[in-house]
Amino acid sequence: MQIKEIVKQIQPVSEKWREKARERLANLIIPQGSLGDLLALAEQLAAVKETLKPSVQKKAVVVMAADHGVVEEGVSAYPAEVTPQMVTNFVGGGAAVSVLAEVVGARVLVVDMGVAADLDHLAREGKILSRKVGFGSRNLARGPAMSREQAQQALQAGFAIAEELVREGYELLATGDMGIGNTTPSSAILAVFSGRPVREVTGRGTGISDGILENKVRVIEKGIAVNRPDPDDPLDVLAKVGGFEIGGLAGLILGAAARRTPVIIDGFISSAAALLAKKLAPASVDYMIAGHLSMEQGHRLMLAELGKKPLLALNLRLGEGTGAVLAMPVVAAAANVMSKMLTFEEAGVSKKISSS
Amino acid sequence: MQIKEIVKQIQPVSEKWREKARERLANLIIPQGSLGDLLALAEQLAAVKETLKPSVQKKAVVVMAADHGVVEEGVSAYPAEVTPQMVTNFVGGGAAVSVLAEVVGARVLVVDMGVAADLDHLAREGKILSRKVGFGSRNLARGPAMSREQAQQALQAGFAIAEELVREGYELLATGDMGIGNTTPSSAILAVFSGRPVREVTGRGTGISDGILENKVRVIEKGIAVNRPDPDDPLDVLAKVGGFEIGGLAGLILGAAARRTPVIIDGFISSAAALLAKKLAPASVDYMIAGHLSMEQGHRLMLAELGKKPLLALNLRLGEGTGAVLAMPVVAAAANVMSKMLTFEEAGVSKKISSS
Repeated sequence: MQIKEIVKQIQPVSEKWREKARERLANLIIPQGSLGDLLALAEQLAAVKETLKPSVQKKAVVVMAADHGVVEEGVSAYPAEVTPQMVTNFVGGGAAVSVLAEVVGARVLVVDMGVAADLDHLAREGKILSRKVGFGSRNLARGPAMSREQAQQALQAGFAIAEELVREGYELLATGDMGIGNTTPSSAILAVFSGRPVREVTGRGTGISDGILENKVRVIEKGIAVNRPDPDDPLDVLAKVGGFEIGGLAGLILGAAARRTPVIIDGFISSAAALLAKKLAPASVDYMIAGHLSMEQGHRLMLAELGKKPLLALNLRLGEGTGAVLAMPVVAAAANVMSKMLTFEEAGVSKKISSS
Repeated sequence: MQIKEIVKQIQPVSEKWREKARERLANLIIPQGSLGDLLALAEQLAAVKETLKPSVQKKAVVVMAADHGVVEEGVSAYPAEVTPQMVTNFVGGGAAVSVLAEVVGARVLVVDMGVAADLDHLAREGKILSRKVGFGSRNLARGPAMSREQAQQALQAGFAIAEELVREGYELLATGDMGIGNTTPSSAILAVFSGRPVREVTGRGTGISDGILENKVRVIEKGIAVNRPDPDDPLDVLAKVGGFEIGGLAGLILGAAARRTPVIIDGFISSAAALLAKKLAPASVDYMIAGHLSMEQGHRLMLAELGKKPLLALNLRLGEGTGAVLAMPVVAAAANVMSKMLTFEEAGVSKKISSS
């Protein structure tokens, strides 16, 4: 499917159902507004799913992995070989996202979007999905990270995965990422779209020193100067300063939106993908839920660009989908508030004493 | 059991196990510290349970209900009859805590600590636990809310419930409250222990108007002036300006601490109980986890008195245990991080590039 056709499928959520939800929520057996952020979330779920009984029981976190040529510039604290090693651990169950997903009962679907290693054995065993666009992106400091065709391919692959998951009955999706070096393209994307100075949107990723951070800022500045990505052309931004997993996640988010399925956005990298999705199809933000506020510098600005308030703030800065997975029970709680709580009338509970 | 004997059973958590936990957590396959608040929580669970494989699978939220004589002073937006009505709804499953507990797989145990209505039918059907200390406390603005013996009885009842739950295999407890008017005694308790002005620690509870708030402040000031509770004698504070469910919850928290079981503290009322528990047995705070920051004015100050940082901040101000229940998956996530994640060595993942 062409990107133009993908975008056309994304419609705003239902204001009619949002209004119906608001009305019911205002009559639940609680003091008005006392369930705080759960109420806005409950409204959103009703508007997304066009029902007062939204269900988010079947859930999956899609962890997309890829490598980044820009790592050769020395922007990360870890070697690129960690990307395929971590993919193996996601599958094995000993990684953070694996043990967190177990708690919330979510499937972890790992997708090789462009890891610079042969992971065919894992794909053949059905342990990961292979949608490899390449063996790592190119070094964005020296030219485009990928071709425009590859950017399209990444988006389309992500879109198709969301479609397939919804077809399989998944009612709530979440995004996750793995890719040594991937805060670099994410900061570049934010800088391009927000127009903010690179320094302001660039952080320590996995925990780099002051010296490496200085270098990282220079590398991103150089990447933007060399490539001149057009902020009015999201595909151009993805191709020039993005990454394969970021493109895949943007496609996944668009797919969720096209299939009227809520999607929880994880941290900095996932939010860069969400920002690309928003730029491609503004209505897609209606389907997004910001899982958490990451400690990565720039995530706050990223969420502001998305116009989203995060559900959690647990000082995470890991990625993998960890923050999104932790937010799943909050989303499930909001769904239950919407679909299972009683109103004052239904429950026979006395209302507030008239405004005395 | 006498209060003195209860207090004697509460020992600090194990610093040895905390140290062991810290060591293992520092070697997990994540960039150092990148799991944020989950790491401190994982340490705490290891120190509480004296194991590197803490389990919090079997969990219960104990919702204690009581009425408050002070309601006759016009401090609440709702009539007292709502307390028994809500107990019925907790049991029926249509209340907020009921639908949230379903999401996290927690048992809701409702305890009548002193509702001003006959709930014997629910107790006989095994739907609630009856530990009634009285049919509502007395009006604290005109004299002590209860006798010293009643305060003891409430504490002992809560303690025994925690003991019994741990005996039944519960590994994680949470507190919840229901009682029209119960932010009034909670604010009074905070004012007495913190020495802060009543106005500063008094909020809108279920959503009272400016006029009622002014009155509430005066009522609490009067209650403290009339009763002169001794901040160095927590039992005296509970008796004079407390409530039956607050005493019961304080006992529950002490019981959890005595049985080395983590206990999630809900919002303002539960935190007043936690403050009483801390004053009775300072080591009990080691076992407490602050579930969330409530919107109720004064909760921030209450948490500061407890020395606790809340896990969530979802703008709730409901009570019932809702904030504590929502925090359960975060606690379960921390337990899984501690017990199931792999270290770099175990996973064969490359470590950080030496500090370049």
